[in-house]
Formats: sequence, C-alpha cells, structure tokens
Amino acid sequence: MRIGILGYGNLGRGVEAAARQNPDMKLVAVFTRRKPESVKVFTESAEVLSVDVIEDWRNKIDVLILCGGSATDLPEQTPKYAKMFNCVDSFDTHANIPLHFENVDKAAKEGGKVAIISVGWDPGLFSLNRMYANAILPVGNDYTFWGRGVSQGHSDAIRRIKGVKDAKQYTVPVEKAIQSVKNGENPLLSTREKHTRECYVVLEDGADAKLVEHEIVTMPNYFSDYDTTVHFISEDELRKNHSGIPHGGFVLRSGSTGFDNEQKHIIEYSLKLDSNPGFTSSVLLAYARAAFRIYNEGQFGCKTVFDIPPAYLSPKSPEELRRTML
Amino acid sequence: MRIGILGYGNLGRGVEAAARQNPDMKLVAVFTRRKPESVKVFTESAEVLSVDVIEDWRNKIDVLILCGGSATDLPEQTPKYAKMFNCVDSFDTHANIPLHFENVDKAAKEGGKVAIISVGWDPGLFSLNRMYANAILPVGNDYTFWGRGVSQGHSDAIRRIKGVKDAKQYTVPVEKAIQSVKNGENPLLSTREKHTRECYVVLEDGADAKLVEHEIVTMPNYFSDYDTTVHFISEDELRKNHSGIPHGGFVLRSGSTGFDNEQKHIIEYSLKLDSNPGFTSSVLLAYARAAFRIYNEGQFGCKTVFDIPPAYLSPKSPEELRRTML
Repeated sequence: MRIGILGYGNLGRGVEAAARQNPDMKLVAVFTRRKPESVKVFTESAEVLSVDVIEDWRNKIDVLILCGGSATDLPEQTPKYAKMFNCVDSFDTHANIPLHFENVDKAAKEGGKVAIISVGWDPGLFSLNRMYANAILPVGNDYTFWGRGVSQGHSDAIRRIKGVKDAKQYTVPVEKAIQSVKNGENPLLSTREKHTRECYVVLEDGADAKLVEHEIVTMPNYFSDYDTTVHFISEDELRKNHSGIPHGGFVLRSGSTGFDNEQKHIIEYSLKLDSNPGFTSSVLLAYARAAFRIYNEGQFGCKTVFDIPPAYLSPKSPEELRRTML
Repeated sequence: MRIGILGYGNLGRGVEAAARQNPDMKLVAVFTRRKPESVKVFTESAEVLSVDVIEDWRNKIDVLILCGGSATDLPEQTPKYAKMFNCVDSFDTHANIPLHFENVDKAAKEGGKVAIISVGWDPGLFSLNRMYANAILPVGNDYTFWGRGVSQGHSDAIRRIKGVKDAKQYTVPVEKAIQSVKNGENPLLSTREKHTRECYVVLEDGADAKLVEHEIVTMPNYFSDYDTTVHFISEDELRKNHSGIPHGGFVLRSGSTGFDNEQKHIIEYSLKLDSNPGFTSSVLLAYARAAFRIYNEGQFGCKTVFDIPPAYLSPKSPEELRRTML
C-alpha cells in the first residue's frame, strides 16, 4: 500500500513513524502547504511536494492520510481530495460529523473512492466502544471520561489571554466519579463532578497573575463550569516538565440483564497514551488498510468506524485471525 | 426479528431475558431435548417444543440461538441447524474454532443461511479487542487475564473427585501482574504469575479433607501449574455465598509508537460481570441482529465477530449512530 500524507505537523510525523511499523505500507509522498524544500522528513524514499501538485499523484498513492485540523482544514480538504484519492481523516468536531459525512460521501461517490472520516480515539475507538456496549447492554448508562491529558483547545484559549506567554492545560478525570461508575452506582454526574482542569501558565514580563487567573477560571465554555487550578511557572519549567502531549480516558457502560434487571455488569475501555498524535496516527493507518481493501472490493463513498468489519484493519488473513486471536 | 432458542439452560434463559430488552426482537419458540411439557418458560407468547419438530419452524424463525455446550452439543448442532436457520452460537473451544468454522461454513452455504460462531466475551468481545489493539499497535505485547470469576470446567473437575459432594472454583487474576502490565513494564508472566485458583468444597460425610485437597492442587492441566487454595465449607454456605456465576477479566495491549518506539501506550478492555450467562446471552442477541441483516443483504456462510461491521449490532440507523455515538 502506497501511503501519502497531507500536512506535516505532529499528526503527519506520527503517520510517518507508524508507517515504518507496518511492513505492508510504504510512505511515498508528503504534501505540504509550506515550501517543500523547508520540510525535512525522516523517510528517505518519500518525496516532499507542494500540495499544488497533488493531483499528479492520483495513480501513485493508494490512500491519502489527511493530517490537518478539524476547524478549518478538514471540512474543506476531505471533500476536495476524496474525489481523487481514498482518504482517511481524524475530523473530531462531534457536532459537525453528520454534515462532514454528507459532504465527503458525495465527493467520494463522485470520484469512485473510499473515505473513512473521524478516525482516531475519540471520535474513533471510544465511539466504537460506546456503540458495542450499547448494542450489548440496551439497559444501562454511558460514561466517558477524558484524561489525564493535554487539551490543545484549552491550552490555546489560555494563550490568547493578554499577559500569557505560553500555557498548557490538562484535563483530569475525577477519580471518585470513575470509582462510583465502576462500582455500578450509576451516578448522575455534572460537568464539574466529572473532570477538573489544571493549567500551567508562563506570564509575560509585568503581567498581573491575579487578573490572568481570574480570566482563566471564569472563561465561559472552557473553564467556568469546572474546578480549575492555575499554576504559574517559568518558561524553562514548562519546556522541561510539560512538553509532552499525553492523553487518554475511559469509556464505561454500566448495564443490567436478567428478568428483573438483577444482574449488573460493567464494560470498561480505557487508553493511557504517551502521545496523542502518536497514537491517533496509528489508528489512522489501520483504517487506511481497511479503506484500501474496501476500495479494492469495488465499494465507494464515505464510511466511519461503525461501518468497517474489524478484520479489515489487520494485515493478518481471516484464517490466521481465527486461529490466533479468536 | 423472530428469535428461536435451542437448549433451555442458564444460557437459554439468559437469551429469553435479553430478548425482552430488545424491542425489535420477539422470542417465538424454545426447543428442548427434554419433554416440552416439563419446561416452563417466562415468555407467554413463546411456544416450548421438542427439538424433533424444529424443521417445521424453518420459515417461522429469523435467527436460532444455539445455547448448548461446546464439548459435544455445538460441534454437531451448529452445522446441522445452519442448513435450516440463520444461527448464532457461543462455541468456545479456542483450539477447535478453525475446524468448527469450516463445518459450519459448508452447512450455511449449502442452506443459503448466515451463521455467526464463537460469540460471547471470550471468544467474542475479548477477541475483538485483542484484534483491534494489535492492528493499531503492531509493536507491543498482549495480555489477557480472566476473573475474578467462576470456572465451570474447574468446578466440574473438583466435583468428580471421590469424597466431594459439591464445589465452586474461582479463577483470580494476580493484581500485581495486572499492575505491572498497566505500568508499561511488559513483564514476561508464567501461568502461575498470572492467575491463582480458589476452591470452595463441600465434602461427603466421612471424606478425607487432606486427601481431597492433595488431589485438587496436584491435578494436571487444571491446578498443578497454579497456586491453589482450598476451603472446605458447608453445603449451606456454598448455597448462600457461592451460588452466583460472576466472571470477567482484562485484555491489555502494551505497545509503542514513534521513530524510536519512544512513546508508550496502554489499551485496556475489561469486564466485570454479575452473571456470565446473563451477559453472554446479551452478546448473542446483538449478533443475532447482525446475522439477520447480513442474511437480508443476500450474504451467506459462516462469520465471526471479526467479520461483522459494528453498526450491524445496533438497532439504531447509521445516521443516528453517527449523530449520537461517534
């Protein structure tokens, strides 16, 4: 399988690294909006090219991995490139998934290609686990907790405050709430009871710490509904202790079976990730394999993780999977 | 969907209870090898019939759930009935799955029906999670722990010892081993280091406790490779404290990504189940829905959980799934 990458940031680099772990895949091209000569990749056999020439690669790439952002890049890119290539993206604006699906489906059908959208861990693996658990235990409650991990959106929101030089925000699940769910107590949890927010902030010279802290903890949507703690640290300390992008979380379903719902069950799925983009890119590549297989079967259009038979993600044959993993 | 049950033991009763939680399903018939008049079911609309007349129901049942055992029932029943009905079974003798698949596939293709085999939690949901995690993190190690839960096979093995009136055996995962895996230490674990075995035994009058204990802990395959503790208790205590059939376990993959495998990740899936058959039957019914859908699409033959697109398990439409669960 010949893999192309569009966008060489954290996610694009993750896809490049992950391709080296999959012997059936070969990274052949990285497309960028920057000057190609300014971008240095690790894979010697891969060309770095301007996105302007991407159309010339129609027949030289089996699956294009779109590594842009969900805010402005993917809503435009995925429909555009799904006409030319089998595509996989990590579109993660949950509320806009139905519209994105519609746009990409139309484009992929027009081009006779397969596109799998919203691939990653949430949306992605967490969605799958919510869905499986709901289908299996129709009577029950769902809980999703995120973290401990870095929220890029919340970190950015802090950085936009006047007087802030740099910042990192961790989303932290409340251990007590998780334990209550695991104990089968089916708690009703408010936003505040599920997660707390920890902020590490570097101030500009002369900035007013009290004012910045107030602006953070009262910020609507981002912080005002949470218990937020703000730590002011030096630029050095931020670089030394907070340069990683860890993340993770928990999907739980607490359900019951039996004639009187007397049997209680807990299904739990959890991730503990050193690197959010490192892991997400690995999920993208497994679904790239599926996209190419589905395309080779003559199917086309937009798909999500819900539509893909699990075996399509694996390089192993169906016989080998049954023998070794069932 | 009209559901039939073959075999009305713990699993059959579980399927009956689960059918009531799924508004798109209706239990119409329970087939038994016993005298039908000796079997009392809870569902008023369901007929209880001798398995001898099952063929007459070819056109009155959409999916037949086979609730027999893996040792002798299913190897014979699933190939036999997959010629007449769409079937789902919970065949769980891992080593014989390839042969069972072959037999059922031939029969289902002959009959133009769909059969999904080895459905439940292991094989089943645990298999799925092993497979997904392996496809996503090709570099890493797999760990499966079972319990704390009742092993029917081990309990039966104890009951066959002379002097034993009744017994219950719990498989218990070793907490230290699980923690080591969760910490990303990638331990190499022997059989003894992964699980211990706890036995609760009721003796016949006059039986020699020391002798029975010795026979248990030295029993090859079942106990000799484990640290086993034996508790002798009264019949009353067994009934009062050990009448349930709880089970569960953990599937973990510890893997790495990055150009130098420098990013470590842990994927964990775990189940905590009050009732093993209560939960297994719920999984069987979700896959019954999938079997019927696949059949209606004109496919036939034998399938496993690896082949089924997740969305096929859910009563929700693809649009609703994307809107509410992705």
